[in-house]
Amino acid sequence: MTDDCHSVGRGGGATRSNSSVADSSGRRSVPFDGAEFLTDMKRMSAIGATAGGGVQRLAASKEDGEVRDWVARWLREHDFTIRVDAIGNLYGVHEWRPGAPYVVCGSHLDSQPLGGQLDGAYGVLAAAHAADRLRRQVVASGETPMYNIAVADWTNEEGARFQPSLLGSSVYARQMTADEALALVDGDGISLREALAGIGYLGSHDVPWPPAAYAEVHIEQGHGLEEAGIPIGLVSTNWAAYKYEIEVIGEQSHTGPTPMDERKDALLGAAHLIIAARTLADELAPEVLHTSVARVLTHPNSPNTVTSHATLFLELRSPDVDVLGAAEKLFFEAADEVQRSVEVKLIYRQATKRDVLHLDRRGVELARLSAEAIGLASMEVGTVAGQDAIAVAGVTQSVLVFVPSTIGHNEREHASDADLVNGVDVLTEIVTRMCHGELIDSEEDGAAE
Amino acid sequence: MTDDCHSVGRGGGATRSNSSVADSSGRRSVPFDGAEFLTDMKRMSAIGATAGGGVQRLAASKEDGEVRDWVARWLREHDFTIRVDAIGNLYGVHEWRPGAPYVVCGSHLDSQPLGGQLDGAYGVLAAAHAADRLRRQVVASGETPMYNIAVADWTNEEGARFQPSLLGSSVYARQMTADEALALVDGDGISLREALAGIGYLGSHDVPWPPAAYAEVHIEQGHGLEEAGIPIGLVSTNWAAYKYEIEVIGEQSHTGPTPMDERKDALLGAAHLIIAARTLADELAPEVLHTSVARVLTHPNSPNTVTSHATLFLELRSPDVDVLGAAEKLFFEAADEVQRSVEVKLIYRQATKRDVLHLDRRGVELARLSAEAIGLASMEVGTVAGQDAIAVAGVTQSVLVFVPSTIGHNEREHASDADLVNGVDVLTEIVTRMCHGELIDSEEDGAAE
Repeated sequence: MTDDCHSVGRGGGATRSNSSVADSSGRRSVPFDGAEFLTDMKRMSAIGATAGGGVQRLAASKEDGEVRDWVARWLREHDFTIRVDAIGNLYGVHEWRPGAPYVVCGSHLDSQPLGGQLDGAYGVLAAAHAADRLRRQVVASGETPMYNIAVADWTNEEGARFQPSLLGSSVYARQMTADEALALVDGDGISLREALAGIGYLGSHDVPWPPAAYAEVHIEQGHGLEEAGIPIGLVSTNWAAYKYEIEVIGEQSHTGPTPMDERKDALLGAAHLIIAARTLADELAPEVLHTSVARVLTHPNSPNTVTSHATLFLELRSPDVDVLGAAEKLFFEAADEVQRSVEVKLIYRQATKRDVLHLDRRGVELARLSAEAIGLASMEVGTVAGQDAIAVAGVTQSVLVFVPSTIGHNEREHASDADLVNGVDVLTEIVTRMCHGELIDSEEDGAAE
Repeated sequence: MTDDCHSVGRGGGATRSNSSVADSSGRRSVPFDGAEFLTDMKRMSAIGATAGGGVQRLAASKEDGEVRDWVARWLREHDFTIRVDAIGNLYGVHEWRPGAPYVVCGSHLDSQPLGGQLDGAYGVLAAAHAADRLRRQVVASGETPMYNIAVADWTNEEGARFQPSLLGSSVYARQMTADEALALVDGDGISLREALAGIGYLGSHDVPWPPAAYAEVHIEQGHGLEEAGIPIGLVSTNWAAYKYEIEVIGEQSHTGPTPMDERKDALLGAAHLIIAARTLADELAPEVLHTSVARVLTHPNSPNTVTSHATLFLELRSPDVDVLGAAEKLFFEAADEVQRSVEVKLIYRQATKRDVLHLDRRGVELARLSAEAIGLASMEVGTVAGQDAIAVAGVTQSVLVFVPSTIGHNEREHASDADLVNGVDVLTEIVTRMCHGELIDSEEDGAAE
């Protein structure tokens, strides 16, 4: 591999092992090594690796601790200062102007159970490489940016171990307090506070604040980019999501002698609700309504005792709140009927009520210009899932770009090397422009202050 | 309370604090103290007591160990020798004729999660009191019985923590080996061997063998006796039961972006199967077909990841194997349709295939005569649920009697004091007759040898 390749890859086809790209201002001079990034990605993916080719690094687990340690070491070795805040968010900070706001870039290192290598982890490593490239450019060019930079690993994005999801980024965005988040418990009754302390990531450092802007690259986990043959997705909207915890209350009795007509079976009630949720999407509009129940807890969960309690985690997602409202109404009607027919009681707790979010147009435009500057085609896309960038959008201009990948939350999750390297290159361009103050409206600086 | 009350209570109305009853041979002379039994029952129920008035003493748990210790102490204090066998069955043995077969009486101390005070524990304490009454009678009368006596607490009858149920009694009845049973693991991956060792009940003593006969008293957990106003049920049949573990295999993916028509949702498949099981009973014959799914395990059980694996524990029970066969066939047909429509795969593992069991008529007759001798009305009943007496019936004449109680596997499980004392009295009469060789056909002695 050489360091003198200056050609620019386009689309998802070619693998670019090295690239050095220049934006319109000619700011770049340091060659970027895509192969080095891919090698680091492989090293990182060995932590918590599963037999099926994925990773399992549940939030604040031993494996999450190990991958955090690995990333922290990498950042220290590349001249970043490590900070860990009260909710365990891990930052690598590099300051050019003490006291100036921060451009923050990052994603999350936690995974689903038997999750993929890329979901979140790719974004954190991409942010580390992008920030380090900028750091080296600044050394080479001598041109000091307006803003400092921070690489972030946000705690418990997945929401697999602790609910809700987007926890660390939501605390950063001041949508909930660290104390509220730390008090949450997993399925075994272990609090996030205990779990973070257990891996040495219950911190007390100041967060990089105020944010000047935020940038994140993530795999798409859908078909949009692949089908269009476009390497970069510019996320402009996030689907609305209503999420409920529904408790189904029946009555514990013996599955043997208890007459069928006397049973109040909470698991039977839960089964009807799971099907009702699916039926909504099938009958209303599966293209613009995604529904699911994917977590269920039952008591006593004994083969020969009728279930007394079942808790379901229901998600309804749509790009149209009117569709969501209609779906919610129909679900409640179906659930009322289940209450009557199965003789169970239902208790609803709304865990998430997320409206459709339109990301700041100036950020979308900045991302588009960045991709264009390095010769990559891009298109606007929506994101169905929440991402840390969506939470952080509440306090600053937030940019989210996607690279092509199809299935998500699966060990077989995959993106091509070329697409992964493209994503790092675009992110580098975006954070470089952000740190130099491009397209950031001064009114927006530290917006949440 | 006095010791000189010799009247005999009839039916479920009167509480008999003391009773001394004589069978036709005039063998009895020791007064029986019902109040003492009820006091012991209260003491025992304090172990693992729950806020809702029940107990939680899962098999081989700390609480199971505590209640075993309590019963073992009681037995030692009443001149019984303690033995613990390879599967953790706890015996209190009293020998009059070394080398002679044993009349065994007992039940189980393990409970369901949030179970009732009486299910199993009542039968063990009743057996301890009945055996001790006989022991005292023998001392008073000087008439040495033909057979020795053993009180038994059978390990893991419930099948709540370790599947299948009836584990200790099935090992005693040589239907499975101790090694097979000890290798079973609970939902947390802890083996029965480890769990028993943890509470000090992984034994190596000889079992009381050969059995001359077996007797057990249990609460009915149904409406038959209560509705008939009869205090003693003579169990003559046990419903057949087919039990399956069904694995539903889908594909893990993201509940957000994954298009609805690409999902292979194992939990959705499971929901259809749960409803299919219930529909069978409703449509075929709910009086003679009881169906249930009461335990479900899912993976990854994360709110935002489509379920890849769900395991269901299905039970089909009927007093008629033809009904059961028809139900099983219809279930498989419905399940095939679920496989197609939800795009999941199903794997079946049959855990239990129990035919209708007719208990030995001579035992039913012995129980009827015993109730009659002490002035209690009785009626024949069937048992839907399996009991240890059903497993032991495979190796010896086994007698099972019920006392009235309605709801089972529930903290609110209840029987009147009078009915509980009646049950102890009948059991005393039964084991007395058995130990003196009454109604035991000599061909049946040590039948399984």
